Amino acid sequence: MKISELGGEAALIRLIQQKYGRTTGEGLALGIGDDAALIESDDRFLIVTADILIENTHFRMDLIEPYLLGWKSVAVNVSDIAAMGGTPTYCFVSIGLPDVEVPVVEGIYRGMLDCSEQFGSAIAGGDTVGSDAGIVINVTQLGWVERDLAARRNGARPGDAILVTNTLGDSRAGLELLLKRGIEDARNVGDYLVDRHLKPQPRVKEARAAVHARKVHAMMDLSDGLASDLDKLCEASGVGARVLASDLPLSKELRAAADLLAADPVQLAASGGEDYELLITCAAEDAQAVTVAIAHTGSSATIIGEIVERENVVLVSADGKESPMPASWQHF
Amino acid sequence: MKISELGGEAALIRLIQQKYGRTTGEGLALGIGDDAALIESDDRFLIVTADILIENTHFRMDLIEPYLLGWKSVAVNVSDIAAMGGTPTYCFVSIGLPDVEVPVVEGIYRGMLDCSEQFGSAIAGGDTVGSDAGIVINVTQLGWVERDLAARRNGARPGDAILVTNTLGDSRAGLELLLKRGIEDARNVGDYLVDRHLKPQPRVKEARAAVHARKVHAMMDLSDGLASDLDKLCEASGVGARVLASDLPLSKELRAAADLLAADPVQLAASGGEDYELLITCAAEDAQAVTVAIAHTGSSATIIGEIVERENVVLVSADGKESPMPASWQHF
Repeated sequence: MKISELGGEAALIRLIQQKYGRTTGEGLALGIGDDAALIESDDRFLIVTADILIENTHFRMDLIEPYLLGWKSVAVNVSDIAAMGGTPTYCFVSIGLPDVEVPVVEGIYRGMLDCSEQFGSAIAGGDTVGSDAGIVINVTQLGWVERDLAARRNGARPGDAILVTNTLGDSRAGLELLLKRGIEDARNVGDYLVDRHLKPQPRVKEARAAVHARKVHAMMDLSDGLASDLDKLCEASGVGARVLASDLPLSKELRAAADLLAADPVQLAASGGEDYELLITCAAEDAQAVTVAIAHTGSSATIIGEIVERENVVLVSADGKESPMPASWQHF
Repeated sequence: MKISELGGEAALIRLIQQKYGRTTGEGLALGIGDDAALIESDDRFLIVTADILIENTHFRMDLIEPYLLGWKSVAVNVSDIAAMGGTPTYCFVSIGLPDVEVPVVEGIYRGMLDCSEQFGSAIAGGDTVGSDAGIVINVTQLGWVERDLAARRNGARPGDAILVTNTLGDSRAGLELLLKRGIEDARNVGDYLVDRHLKPQPRVKEARAAVHARKVHAMMDLSDGLASDLDKLCEASGVGARVLASDLPLSKELRAAADLLAADPVQLAASGGEDYELLITCAAEDAQAVTVAIAHTGSSATIIGEIVERENVVLVSADGKESPMPASWQHF
């Protein structure tokens, strides 16, 4: 049986988690299955997360500048540290390189360094190897979080408000523009959206503000798209969710591009992916406090629905009709 | 300028270390440039190391069983933890997979799990993604070491004895047999050597015994071959080395295969690579104590030469002739 017949990436990950991964153990507070692992260290948790990007699977060198590739490869990991409520410290970069031009490599590292520095982190090690399979980058990011502030996926409770930071769908719209129009034209018609796709901004400040408010029940970052990620949060918490389509925060740039792309902006926001915004649940009565805490960082937070007991995730349209959340893109 | 014109992998790594990496910093005792990084944690050091393996660059699926690929991908990282004198704890596996058969994936993970368990470690997280570029595996391994026992590359002093554990060159001979004869025939004529290549045994017990003797000046693991690795140790320590060709520990299996391969066994031992044995320096008068400590683990240790002031690494033949150590294989 091939991976695709097993049920694709999600089914494979479940199999690996169950049979080969450790979820808890000596000094391991949280293992496989969340945005990152938590390991006991002093009176804090060490946070560890890893992301791998493969050329022509996850990125194309004709659609992304080396600098932004480097930025993004660190940013997606820093976003996972934020998802746990933590602060990034050091990353370890494994890179496989064909015999490319040295400025390409330097561009990648400059992007990684700038993103690391912007969020208080640094590159402390890794592995540099030749590659006959294009460019491959794995970043393993470390961070830390106070034990009583660590945010997990599995704490959502029925009645919780569901919040997201800033706007959703921008990154996917930027990607669609890139794929349909090439980088130059895409930047002309939708520079903001292209940047949202190519230069994601991990929400570290926002996450720290949220956990310091001490009201967060569950938190994760939106990497695979709201539909897919909310589903994971609900599965981990044993709950379901109702999301109001009309409450999804959309940028004016997304609305404009949706016309251009002949795409539904709600669909882009619900299933787009790579937003790297935060998905948070807290008691309904605390939603205001969390929103205000996040607002102090300069970002916004919007209530988009509520956690319910029934274990499925539905999207409620303006006329009250319920439908399953639109599925996300799958590789296998 | 391409990487190959810059001077290949070694030159690129030097450039990245100097311009983009952090060697020390807040809580970072040792960054880029050793087998692993050391981060302050409680009264100990957290050790972090990463290795990436790319299909058709570092391994071929027709020459290695999935189980052994998994084993090796963890073993090479555990070996880096040993190189620092440490104990492995948890690893994080990033894997890129084409749509292969599920038993292939399970075989890889079974090998990773078995190797982890054998050395007291476990898989605590990672990233599983699709890949259009063949199988890619990055393992980031964590471990710990007492602050006063941590072994580095840069402590070698003129007059030190140079020791290695067990025998050298076996792995390279195993690889040559695999490449020249295919897996079945290679196993028939040199099963021991093939196993030394495909199923390396990280020397964790041996390294712990060595550092507990409190005599080690410098230590690293032999991954790229004695010539290349001793050169790195000497460069880090600002010293040189004289290695006696006649003292290199060779297995009887290597001697037998050298005939079969029409290769010089000393050359295989000096530049072979992937031995994953330990390279240790200590004061000449302490060499006996370190050897005995290692012997208690069931492994042997052999003095192969001495550290000298002049900053180059030479191989001294039986008739006293000095020549540069034979170079190692380079990808770029």
